Amino acid sequence: MNLTQLRPQSRFRFLVYSFVAIFAVCICSVAKASDPLPSWNSGPAKQAIVDFVTKVTQKGGEHFVRPEERIATFDNDGTLWVEQPIYTQVTFIFDRVKELAPQHPEWKTTQPFKALLEGDMKTVGASGEKGILQMGMATHTGMTAAEFEKMVREWITTAKHPHFKRLYTECVYQPQLELLAYLRSNGFKTFIVSGGGIEFMRPWTEEIYGIPPEQVVGSSIVTEFQIKEVKPVLVRLPKINFINDKAGKPVGIYQHIGRRPILAFGNADADMQMIQYTKAGDGLRLGLFVHHTDSEREYAYDRKSHVGRLDKVLDIATENDWIIVDMKNDWKQIFPGAK
Amino acid sequence: MNLTQLRPQSRFRFLVYSFVAIFAVCICSVAKASDPLPSWNSGPAKQAIVDFVTKVTQKGGEHFVRPEERIATFDNDGTLWVEQPIYTQVTFIFDRVKELAPQHPEWKTTQPFKALLEGDMKTVGASGEKGILQMGMATHTGMTAAEFEKMVREWITTAKHPHFKRLYTECVYQPQLELLAYLRSNGFKTFIVSGGGIEFMRPWTEEIYGIPPEQVVGSSIVTEFQIKEVKPVLVRLPKINFINDKAGKPVGIYQHIGRRPILAFGNADADMQMIQYTKAGDGLRLGLFVHHTDSEREYAYDRKSHVGRLDKVLDIATENDWIIVDMKNDWKQIFPGAK
Repeated sequence: MNLTQLRPQSRFRFLVYSFVAIFAVCICSVAKASDPLPSWNSGPAKQAIVDFVTKVTQKGGEHFVRPEERIATFDNDGTLWVEQPIYTQVTFIFDRVKELAPQHPEWKTTQPFKALLEGDMKTVGASGEKGILQMGMATHTGMTAAEFEKMVREWITTAKHPHFKRLYTECVYQPQLELLAYLRSNGFKTFIVSGGGIEFMRPWTEEIYGIPPEQVVGSSIVTEFQIKEVKPVLVRLPKINFINDKAGKPVGIYQHIGRRPILAFGNADADMQMIQYTKAGDGLRLGLFVHHTDSEREYAYDRKSHVGRLDKVLDIATENDWIIVDMKNDWKQIFPGAK
Repeated sequence: MNLTQLRPQSRFRFLVYSFVAIFAVCICSVAKASDPLPSWNSGPAKQAIVDFVTKVTQKGGEHFVRPEERIATFDNDGTLWVEQPIYTQVTFIFDRVKELAPQHPEWKTTQPFKALLEGDMKTVGASGEKGILQMGMATHTGMTAAEFEKMVREWITTAKHPHFKRLYTECVYQPQLELLAYLRSNGFKTFIVSGGGIEFMRPWTEEIYGIPPEQVVGSSIVTEFQIKEVKPVLVRLPKINFINDKAGKPVGIYQHIGRRPILAFGNADADMQMIQYTKAGDGLRLGLFVHHTDSEREYAYDRKSHVGRLDKVLDIATENDWIIVDMKNDWKQIFPGAK
């Protein structure tokens, strides 16, 4: 349509209608945005989040934080997705051992590989962190970065959670997906800061959480640049580079992000230092902590559970005004598309 | 003004004028954007850059790259700012040694500190990388992360280049500032990947280059999380964590970014592996290389110079179709606000 073809009155009406239409779109957007966290029940946790975001984004306000400094860090296991009955990456390691076993006849007689292949999970469990690490090294190294990424992609798009019978990437918490989006829409940059393997997370965090690889901080093994048959590649070596857990989390944040977060969210003792470091900065800071209290829809675990230990952190949280998120009461919905 | 207070004809005119004003702003923006690289002379280098950006951003085109994957990495010393007559960070180290000397009487009798304090630069030079590293450790560690950042900020806002007599942050290359902005306006995420200290760069890269701390990759020392008088801090320890140089650059990219760049820009042998790694990815990739050929406006140096060595890289560049940027001919202007 050519505006000049209309009579002045019609032109005027056309323009007014256009304005009205634009206003209507704006109003709808505002209405839709009125509850950015629909899967969070009303209560002190939700209120604390909304209050914090409102304050740090209020221009000219006492607590205003420039968008560049709005850094939010999230633990992954137990904070963004299920970590029970065992960490997802450990299941990945077990599945890889089983798949690679034909190429490793020596595993039939080497513990803890032997126990795993025979289904003797008690012996596997007794091998502890050392045993898991041994199997992790055997399955996560010796290939190029690209080959490892392919393995992760293949596994994560097919493997299912034993209890929920859905893909692991469907065992992420709907309220947290909303929180991540809410923070980003308020100018925050969202990061994962996990004890898990950095390269185990990166292939899927962008699609699932909207967090790109460069905003994932995690534990890592040493890699080496090599020219393999004239092609430059990165080869994964069987040597620990960095453990991004406990006191390692603030170190990982300093190394990768180079700024102190203003919001940190965790769920275990291993997240304590990250939240302490975050809260120790100047100005308004928010420390958040998921307490798994929902034995029906997810899991309930507390002090002395075999994963996600909470020996000290609940006391520290209470003493330091962290916001405890009670999963059972604060979350209306746990998983996307399910109660 | 309330639109309803105007007569219909006036209202119509007001709205038409508003539209015209908006169109005018749009047209000006387009005109301004017509040469996004005004400090680049026309020639094969500028053409190669514009062609590349056009191709990877053309939706539906053969070479289209999703915005998330438009990663561009830049070396810093000699690529984004002057690296002659010595690396800026080395000058920072020297200045710190002189400032801290009163607190370290032992330096009066310890080399290479003694030589530096006596102005015997020949002996300092003879101490080589080992000597520089020794002084770097003595001046870059033993304090908290926040204290070190403060030192860098103070120095960088006052220290001047010995030849150009301007702040080091004013000895950045104007054509590269334009290139960084041009790439970002085309959906690229720009990163620094430097052999220099990561925490020496982060305090000022955002203001100067528009590159935030989390997009700076560099060499680092080990840090440790400590609770110091009830305050959680990160303490810098006298131990190398990672050297982000030569074959370390692709490793640093994998560690920090987790994606292979599609464009990499360097100026020395130490950037060779970064560019090789970048070019080895699938699809269209651009490798760029500043050749310092301008003894009048900046410096001219080639194979066997004492910094920014070019022993091998010029041959590799030619063999592999990297774009050589000839500073003298390709750059109309070298520094901001100066020829």
